[in-house]
This record gives sequence, structure tokens and C-alpha cells, in this order.
Amino acid sequence: MTKLDDLLTPNSVAVVGASDDPSRIGGRPLSFFKNLGYEGAIYPVNPNRDRVQGLKAYQSLNDIDGSVDFVLVAVPAKGVVQVVRDAAAKKAKTVMIFSSGFGEMNEEGQKAQDELTSIARESGVRIIGPNCLGVFNSAINFYPTFTTTIERKQPNPGGLAIASQSGAYGSHIFYLAHLRGLDMTYWITTGNECDVHVAEAIKLLAEKEDVQAICAYAESIKDGDVLVEGLEIARAERKPVIFMKVGRSEVGAAAASSHTASLAGEDVIYDAVIKQCGAHRARTTEEALDIAYACRPQIYPVGRRIGLVTVSGGGGVLMADASADYDLDVAEMPADAQAEMRELVPFAAPRNPVDVTAQFFNDLTLVPKFTKLMLDCGNYDALIGFWTSVAGSPKISPMLRKYLAEAMEGQKDKLFMQSLVAPPEICKEYEDEGFPCFEDPSRAVATMAALMSFGMAFKSGRPAEPDVPPLPALPDGDLGEKEAKEILSDFGLPLATDKLATSSAEAAQAAAAAGAPVAMKIASPDILHKTDVGGVKLGIAADAAAAAYDEIIANAKAAKPDAQIDGVLISPMAADGVDCILGVKVDPVFGPVVMFGLGGVFTEVLKDVSFRKAPVSLETAMGMIDELKGTELLKGARGAEPSDLGALCDAISKLSVFAEAHAKAIESIEINPLRALPKGAIGLDALIVKRALQA
Amino acid sequence: MTKLDDLLTPNSVAVVGASDDPSRIGGRPLSFFKNLGYEGAIYPVNPNRDRVQGLKAYQSLNDIDGSVDFVLVAVPAKGVVQVVRDAAAKKAKTVMIFSSGFGEMNEEGQKAQDELTSIARESGVRIIGPNCLGVFNSAINFYPTFTTTIERKQPNPGGLAIASQSGAYGSHIFYLAHLRGLDMTYWITTGNECDVHVAEAIKLLAEKEDVQAICAYAESIKDGDVLVEGLEIARAERKPVIFMKVGRSEVGAAAASSHTASLAGEDVIYDAVIKQCGAHRARTTEEALDIAYACRPQIYPVGRRIGLVTVSGGGGVLMADASADYDLDVAEMPADAQAEMRELVPFAAPRNPVDVTAQFFNDLTLVPKFTKLMLDCGNYDALIGFWTSVAGSPKISPMLRKYLAEAMEGQKDKLFMQSLVAPPEICKEYEDEGFPCFEDPSRAVATMAALMSFGMAFKSGRPAEPDVPPLPALPDGDLGEKEAKEILSDFGLPLATDKLATSSAEAAQAAAAAGAPVAMKIASPDILHKTDVGGVKLGIAADAAAAAYDEIIANAKAAKPDAQIDGVLISPMAADGVDCILGVKVDPVFGPVVMFGLGGVFTEVLKDVSFRKAPVSLETAMGMIDELKGTELLKGARGAEPSDLGALCDAISKLSVFAEAHAKAIESIEINPLRALPKGAIGLDALIVKRALQA
Repeated sequence: MTKLDDLLTPNSVAVVGASDDPSRIGGRPLSFFKNLGYEGAIYPVNPNRDRVQGLKAYQSLNDIDGSVDFVLVAVPAKGVVQVVRDAAAKKAKTVMIFSSGFGEMNEEGQKAQDELTSIARESGVRIIGPNCLGVFNSAINFYPTFTTTIERKQPNPGGLAIASQSGAYGSHIFYLAHLRGLDMTYWITTGNECDVHVAEAIKLLAEKEDVQAICAYAESIKDGDVLVEGLEIARAERKPVIFMKVGRSEVGAAAASSHTASLAGEDVIYDAVIKQCGAHRARTTEEALDIAYACRPQIYPVGRRIGLVTVSGGGGVLMADASADYDLDVAEMPADAQAEMRELVPFAAPRNPVDVTAQFFNDLTLVPKFTKLMLDCGNYDALIGFWTSVAGSPKISPMLRKYLAEAMEGQKDKLFMQSLVAPPEICKEYEDEGFPCFEDPSRAVATMAALMSFGMAFKSGRPAEPDVPPLPALPDGDLGEKEAKEILSDFGLPLATDKLATSSAEAAQAAAAAGAPVAMKIASPDILHKTDVGGVKLGIAADAAAAAYDEIIANAKAAKPDAQIDGVLISPMAADGVDCILGVKVDPVFGPVVMFGLGGVFTEVLKDVSFRKAPVSLETAMGMIDELKGTELLKGARGAEPSDLGALCDAISKLSVFAEAHAKAIESIEINPLRALPKGAIGLDALIVKRALQA
Repeated sequence: MTKLDDLLTPNSVAVVGASDDPSRIGGRPLSFFKNLGYEGAIYPVNPNRDRVQGLKAYQSLNDIDGSVDFVLVAVPAKGVVQVVRDAAAKKAKTVMIFSSGFGEMNEEGQKAQDELTSIARESGVRIIGPNCLGVFNSAINFYPTFTTTIERKQPNPGGLAIASQSGAYGSHIFYLAHLRGLDMTYWITTGNECDVHVAEAIKLLAEKEDVQAICAYAESIKDGDVLVEGLEIARAERKPVIFMKVGRSEVGAAAASSHTASLAGEDVIYDAVIKQCGAHRARTTEEALDIAYACRPQIYPVGRRIGLVTVSGGGGVLMADASADYDLDVAEMPADAQAEMRELVPFAAPRNPVDVTAQFFNDLTLVPKFTKLMLDCGNYDALIGFWTSVAGSPKISPMLRKYLAEAMEGQKDKLFMQSLVAPPEICKEYEDEGFPCFEDPSRAVATMAALMSFGMAFKSGRPAEPDVPPLPALPDGDLGEKEAKEILSDFGLPLATDKLATSSAEAAQAAAAAGAPVAMKIASPDILHKTDVGGVKLGIAADAAAAAYDEIIANAKAAKPDAQIDGVLISPMAADGVDCILGVKVDPVFGPVVMFGLGGVFTEVLKDVSFRKAPVSLETAMGMIDELKGTELLKGARGAEPSDLGALCDAISKLSVFAEAHAKAIESIEINPLRALPKGAIGLDALIVKRALQA
């Protein structure tokens, strides 16, 4: 497969199915090429006409003398495969298919689409679509798209780029971005994704020098590794990726899959991976555009300390509330700077939020004085000012803007957002000075929080990942608990050692040898949920072990007469601690994903678990522990001794490495409970489910 | 104290401190009265001038011959008290004080403000302010305010009303509402609230016939009972109250109290009470205005079934995701109606979200056909349509609007919101047809959810409250555990009965009599936290009770040598169940508030508790259980037997009644744990903390 670089910069384009009518799907892009200034060669292909829209028409691709970089296909579905074969033969670099009637329609359509995929794989031509609305590169006026939005508004080249699976929604976002004054050089929609998919588009855009921020929309991701690669390139290049991965809810995912008929993967895992790669997951279009808009100054504060300055007490309170919602630190101003403010305005609230009060109306020079004190002494990563509609008045706004700019001199790495009510032309003047403007102060805060997360993710860079050594293959067949524990224990994970008893006498002996009450569990590769069959007994004294053995065996046989029963595993009862769950599941999109949570109700009722794509470092593992709602329980809540977090991180990281090494062989792993102790941790039960063999 | 009715409709107004300069605080309202068409008598008071702004001026209020309904005070703080006394002597109904320098400044100012309060209480005159920006009634052009916003935009009379503690933020909201096209007859700001407070303003507005919806802003509430009364009047009158109670976060509350120097009360309790009274708590200004805007058709759907119709699959997925966020039910269309849609458009997604697909561009008559099927067969409480910027085009919008209106014929009780991108003048045409418009589909969904909550709250009305009988006074002095348990048990609450042992021999005897392992707890009115002093032992067998007795007494004496020790309470260990916590705290704003939650980590780490103002009915109590995140634990999660929810509701309701009856005597009550059993519930420990006597 060739690289995607040529997609947006072809020297020549052919339109197969070119129409003389510029309002038709096969006519509109041709009209764009001709009339909006594309300078490459343009070849309309239409066997029924000599000329199309005034240009010489060709019978077929083969009739064209020169080479053709880009072939646009706007013929009915049944003719598409042949055109694509012709294009491949003609050594076109890219084929884009507008035509619908493929995977989105029925099985027959999917078969044709699969054929297109094969052609791409075999010939190296890159295919966008089918059922695709197009792409554009406004820097060279290249508009191979039939969206009518271009007729309403020809894009201006600029730093925002869009990658969208949905063409209609991609057009919608483009138009909204235009209304926000956001300029855009590149726009890519991917449709049915028989070859090029949205993750690859993100990666391409991340690599483009003239892209500053990427807004992405996807209902599903075809290749998680490519997505991670693309997001990590964007992080390294300090390009925010604002990701609308929709279908968050069950009903939304159902609607998405009825729309694109593709597997959505698990939403919490998308959440985790997007965050892990330093991108921002936007929940609404408005949120996505707010952030894209505020990225224009390309200042991404590296920290969460926020200074809030206001001319209305109410505005300050609202911004403080919103800051708490987004975990920003509304840190107090130093006492001496507060005193200095009080000298300027005796009734000022100088703490943070800093309330300049209505004195501001009488003396605008207070603005630079107050904000300079905040910037110089408050050590804030960014500021937000709340100035109401007064800042939008034609009389006051030029002065206020001047004073705000004055205060920012020498502070080029800090971002100062303004919350004000003003007509668009006055907002633009603030924006040109480098101040993003929001009417609603709470939206300014939400957006600032996203920019700060970018800043911190850019600074920290891609987290280190532990090495994944090649490991010997797992044994054939299903793995029983004892085997799973041994394998994981051999790899260095802390697991309670068991002794297998195959008779009641052996059970009594093992229990006596353990020197403590014991846990007894049925040993059988065929019984996964041991408790459900009465196969577990806890806290059994040595003299009761023989009877317990007999009972467990009888229970298991009664519940699963066909199960292979190896005996009963006997292990000492572990010391008291906090029960956790540590697991791995192999996600269809992202591969092995490690999961950690508190046990019992936390996991089952509250879904309080965290995920990361494997493998993860100790530091990333600590992030997983920290983000749990119940994390305090591990840190000594309610007077208990704190758990050994280092031991937990070690277990999380080790299991993630183990899972990555065995990614192809396993379906899931679970150590449950993993008991966190004041010193160390001990897994009391473990399960490795191997992947069913692919037919 | 007289009623507040006259505040907004005076026949005459005096301005004390009237200025000839219409840009000054004492001049601006006078200029408004003169120039904007107020028809009552206007009396400027200024001892230094004969005429002010062309009107005859008076030396003092006493010099005015006729009666004066409304006195506006714009003199320096030190002269205010005398003017208010004069106004009271003149039998004015309302005095409004612009002047600042009172409670917001220092103690001396607070003293003067307290004097104003006394004058109001003694004379019956109602006082707004001090430090108040004013009010208005645009129906009679009465603008006693010095906000410059009126100069930018004279309000049009209309159904939205504003009550705001903060004048500056009140002005800001008024101006934003105007930009949204929302008209407003009444606007009240209350400033320092020496007499009239924002809750009373809400109540006044709720009673006004020409008010349709109320937007309120408050940093604190002076009188919780008045607020509840006002909100309940609004509910009975089907008037949405959109409440911005700010200072939600700690740092926000601190900023609010530095702004108004008043006690904010506990935020979770505001949350609970606002919801309990059928109002909506808005977190942002934008959210508040979105809802106010969407209230204009005055249609409040009574249910959460939402039908979503879209022309872009992406828009449908986004709306479905947002609906899940707000707990709306995206119920599936009936199969036969789906089939009918497929006949109209074979590629349509007819499930819900219903995707008409781009076929809509070719045939707009599909819109009424699809939406009519949704309205007639889908049994939805409301619809939202997503039409992108196409719906904003001058060519398409008139037809689309006509078809949407057609579909709504005979559906007057259903609300149909539109998500579209259109210039304001085209939006207005949709709005005039009764369709609220939102550019962002997720904001449409959020707003719809709020309107549905109003609809359901209006339908259910004020929840029934149990009777609160007069109860005999609590015994004097502090109450020990045994006494607390007996008092609550006598009132009908389920509490484990104890036996008091005053010697180790008695302890052994009581334990043997209990016939089961027992719980033993120190009995002392001076020891509240028994576990902390080693004063609790659980699961003690009869033969170990004597020794345990001695140990508990010794522990208690060692930890608290001065404590009065009555002995040790002995009770049988309760059966297994789910430990809950049931409590009451007396909130400074709302009085006794009942609290229910799951015990242990749920309450202490996850803060998973629900609150209601007492007293509460069984039904309201069930609502408290339902809203817990861990509610499944009581309903038989993880294979356990479900708890007896009826018994829990009974306990919650009974305790709330008990607390309401003893509101003046208690500070808090806690039954912890209240163990929920498959049949019944049993409180194992109880505590009643009495209120410290007021000096």
C-alpha cells in the first residue's frame, strides 16, 4: 500500500461520470475544479459526450494520454469496480468513490466493497469511500466533493483541519467552523472506508506542517494502532486533536451502527485511549468548535492554575464554580499582591476570583494594574476575564483591549481568555489581539480546561512504555485456576500459592501444613465461576478440611456432571486488605487493554474502573489508581492503613506486559480479588481465558 | 410587614438625592421616569435646587403634598437611615436604596443596615436594598434603576421575569435575554436584602398573572420557607423557575460570601430542595437562558419519551448520546410504522433516531410524512429535529417550516424543537411557528430534558407531606444512645432494643438471655463516638460477656476519665442485611433536612446520599432511595435478596416527621447503621444531638 501523502495534492484529476449539469453529483466537483482555481489537469470522463462543462471529455480513463493522479468516481454502483480497476491500471495514486450502494446497503453491496478493498491492497492505489462526500485542500483550490456547502462558502486556507467519517456531519462542522471564523486548508471525509479510514486521515493531517489543530468525527475506528500512531504524532507536533467519537451511549451506538454498520468497540475504552494519547474527547459539536476556536493562538498552558478576574461578583462566582467542575485550581493570590489591590480599590475582592468591582467603569487603567499583578505574582498558567457587555461597547472596547494587551506584554506563553458580550466585529478585534472570546464564562472555563490538558499532554509527551519481551507460548487447551496462577506467578505477579489436594486426606494434610485457616476451591478447567457451583469455601480450619473437600467435590459434580475435576486447591487465607480487581480484555479495536478497579460493589454496581491500552508503565498505572472515584480507600480512608500502591502499580504494569506479549492468544485475564495490603499485594484467584481459534 | 404587591406598581415616586445630571446615579432613574413614559407622579428631592431635570424639586419628603408610594434613595450612606424614617412617616409603601456602604463594607455598615431592617419591621414599609441596582416594570415604564443597560435597550413587556440578588449579574442576564429575543415585564434585584430578599421576589413574580417563567440568581437564600412557598406557587401556576444558585463549589461559595457576606448553607441541600419543589437548578447562564427561551411556547412535556428525527446519521447519533446523558427514553418506533417509513425511503433508519436521509433534499414532503408517523405512532412526549444549515436557507426554510407545522396539527400539547443553523431572522420565523431553535443538537436535548422535568413536576404537583403532630418535649440535657433509641423507638422507628448492664455479672446474664452473640457498647451521655474509645464489641458470646464488660468500662475510663458512665448496653447481633445511614440535619436555611444513604464507603468516600426537606411522605422517601448511585444494592444486586424498601421508606418518613416536630430542639439525628433486611429494617445505633441553647 502506498502512503497517503498524495491524496490532497494531485497534479491531475479525472472525473468518471462527469456531468454537464453543475448541480449534479458528477457535475459539481468539475464545476469547482474549473471555477474555483484548481491549476492541475482536469479530465472529464463521459462516453456519451464530447465536451462536459466546456472541457474536452474522454470515453474512458484509458483514453487519457497523460498520467492521472486522482480519479473521482461518480457512476452508479454497479460500474464502480471496473472504473477502479482501470484507475489502478492507469497508476492513479488515489481513487475517490462518491457512489453509494455498497456496505451501507446490503450484503451484495458489502461484497462489492470487499472487492474494492482487495484492489487497493493488491495494486497499491488508495481508495477513499465508497459512499463518500469528498475531501478538499483549499490551499490549491482542490475540491473533489459534492457538498453544497462549498457553494455557500468557499473555504479560506487556515490551520484547522477536519477528518470525518460522516460526510454530512463533516460538512456541517465545516460550515459551523466557518461561522466561527475558523479557516481550514484540509477537509477529509472517509465514508464507508473500504481502504482509507479516519484514523489514517488523522495521521496524515498530524504530519502536515500547515495543520495546527485537528477536529475529528468518527462512529467507529477501523484500526486502533493507526489511531494511536496518529494521535501520538499530533502530540509530538503539539497539535491538539479534538475527537468526537460518537455513539457513547447504548442507544447512540445502536444508531451509529445502523448508520455505518461497523463495530463500535467499547466506549469506556475509546475514552481511555483518547485521553492516554493526549487528545480531547468532545461530547458535543459546540464543545469541539469552542476548543478549535480557542486553539488559534496556539498557546496551551502547562498546568491547571487559573486566575479569574471579573467586574461583577456574580461572574467571578460562576467562573469559580465552573473551574471546580473541571478540576482547575483557583489558587489564592499572594497576600502582598492582595494588599496592593486593596490599595488600588478598597472594596476589591483580591483573593481569586479577583473582583475589580464597578470601579472599572470609572477607571479602565485598573484593568492592566490588576491583571499585571495576577500575571506577575499569582503564578497562574492562564487567566480568564469577565467583562459583561460593557466590553462590547464601541466606546470602551478599544481602550479595554489596549489595556489587556499591555498587561500581557512579555507573557507570550500565557493564555488570557475574555468573557464578554459583543457583536462579531468587536469580538474579532479582541481575537486579533490573541484573546479568545466567549460570551458564557462557564464555556470559557470548560474550554480553558481542555487547552490546559493539551498543554500538559504536549509537555509530558508519549508516556514511556515498558518493554514487551517475547514469552513462551501459553500451554494448549483451557487453563484452570491453578495453571493460570502459576503462569502469572512465574511472570512475577503476586499470586497466592495453592496446593492441589486430590483426596480428603490430602486436603486435611495441606490445611494443617498451611498453619492458618484456609481457602478451598474446586480445581477444574471446566468450571470458571466456582462460587456459583458451591465450589468455594473460605476460612476452613484444619480439622474441618476433609469434610469441606468432600462437600466441594459433591457440589461441583452435582452442578456440572461432565466437568473434568482435578481436585481442590488449598491456600492460606490472606491477611485483611482492600480487594481490587485487575484484568485485561482484548478490545477488537485497540488490542489488550488493562483494567483496574476496586472490587465488589465498586466494580459491579458503580462501574468504578479505569482502563489503559497495554503495555503501561508504573507511572501510567498510578494514573489508573488515581482516577478511581474510590481511590481514597487505597490511600488510608476511614483510618485504615494505606495500601502499598507501588505493589499495585507493579502488578498492573506486569500484567499489561504479559497481556501484550500474548495478545494473539488470549481473550481476557482476571486477577480477582487482587488484595491490596499495607505491604505488597496478593492475588487470590486468577483466570486466563484463551481466544477461540479462528476458523 | 405589608405585602410586596405594591413594589412594582406605584402611583407616585420620589427620588431622594435627585441629580440634574442624567448620567449620575441619582439622575439616571429620574431621566428614565421622565423620558420613557412613566405616568405616575414624580417628585425629585434635592435641598440644593429648585428644579431637577426640569421638574420642581422638593427640600425633603415632608415637603411633598400628596402621598408617595415609592421612595428611591440615592444619597450617601450616612444620610440613608433618616430618609428611610421620613419615608416610613410619609406612609410610603416601598423604599429602594441604591446607596452602598452597608453590610457589604464593614461592621459599622452592617449596624446601619440592621437599623434599616428594624425600621421595616416596625413601620411596615418594605425596603429593597441597600446597595441595590433597582427593579423595573416595563408594562408601566417604571424604571427605578441606574443600570445603563436600559439605555442600550428599553425592555419590551413579556412573560419572562428576573429575580436576582446581584444587580450587575441581573443586568447581564437581562441584556443576554434581550439578545435572545426574550421580552420581560418584571426585573427585580435585591442587593444587600435588609428586608426584601430574592425568595420573596420569586414568590411575588410567581403570583403575577403576566409572568410565564422566572429566572432567578442567588448567592444565598435568607429564608428557606419563603423560597419553598414561592417555588410551590410557581409550580401550582405552571411557571418554570430556572434557578442559578451559585457558589456550588467551595471556592465558588467562598467567592460568593466575600461578595455578599452571607451564609450560603450547604450546596447539596439547595440542590435537593430546588428539585423537590419542581424548579430547575441551572449551572450556567447559557443553560438558564436556553431554558427560558424554550419556555416561550409554554409547552412542558409530561414524560421523558423523546423522538429524534434527522437528515444526517451523525446528528441522530449525537442526539441519542445526549438523550442518554439526560436520562431521556429514546424509545423505538413500533414495527409497523418503521415498515411504513421504509416504504417511503428504503434506506431510511426508522428505529429512533429516525434518519430521513439526504432524500429529504429531493423531497421535502417526506418531513411531514415521517414526523407525523412519529407523532401518531411513536407515543413520544416531544420531538427534536436535526436539519443542519439546509433548514436555514431562504429557499428551503419556508417550505420546511410549513411541513413541520403541518405535521404538528392537532398536537398542541407536544413540543417539537428544531436543531438548525440559520440567521436570526429565519430562526425567528420558526420560533413564531412555535418551534424553539438550537444550533447545537446536544443543547436542544439538554433543554428538552429540563422542560420535561417541569412538565412532570407540574403534573405531579406538590408532593403530599405527612402530618406533623405536636410531640412532647425532648428530655432536658444530653441524650445517651439508650435514651435516643428509646425515644425514636417509642415514635415507631425500628431500633434494636438494648439492655443496660451495670456490672459484669449483669452483662453475662443479659448476653445469655439474648440467646445469640451480642453487641456491647458503652453507655455514656458524654461519649458520642463509641468506637473511637474502644467502647464497642461485636459478636460476643455469652461466656465472654463478663470479660468484655470489664474491658469496655476500662477503655472508656482510660479515654475519657471525666465521662459519666452508666454501664454497657447489650443487644443481640442483628441479622445480615445492607447497612444504611438515616439522618437529619437542621440546615440554617431550610430547617430539618432528612438524609438517607448506604453506609460505609458509599457515604464516606462516595458521598452517595440523598436529601429532602422534612417532612417527607413515603413516596418522596422512595425517590430518595431511587436516586442513590448504589440503589441496586437495596434491590437485590449481586444475587442478594432485595431489601424491604417499604420499611426503609417508613423509617425515612417517620424520622422526618419526628425531626420536623422537634425542629427547634435538635441539631442532628443519626440512625447508623440502619440495617435493611429482606423483611423490615433495624437501627443498631442512634444519636440525637440537641441544639445548643441560644444565648
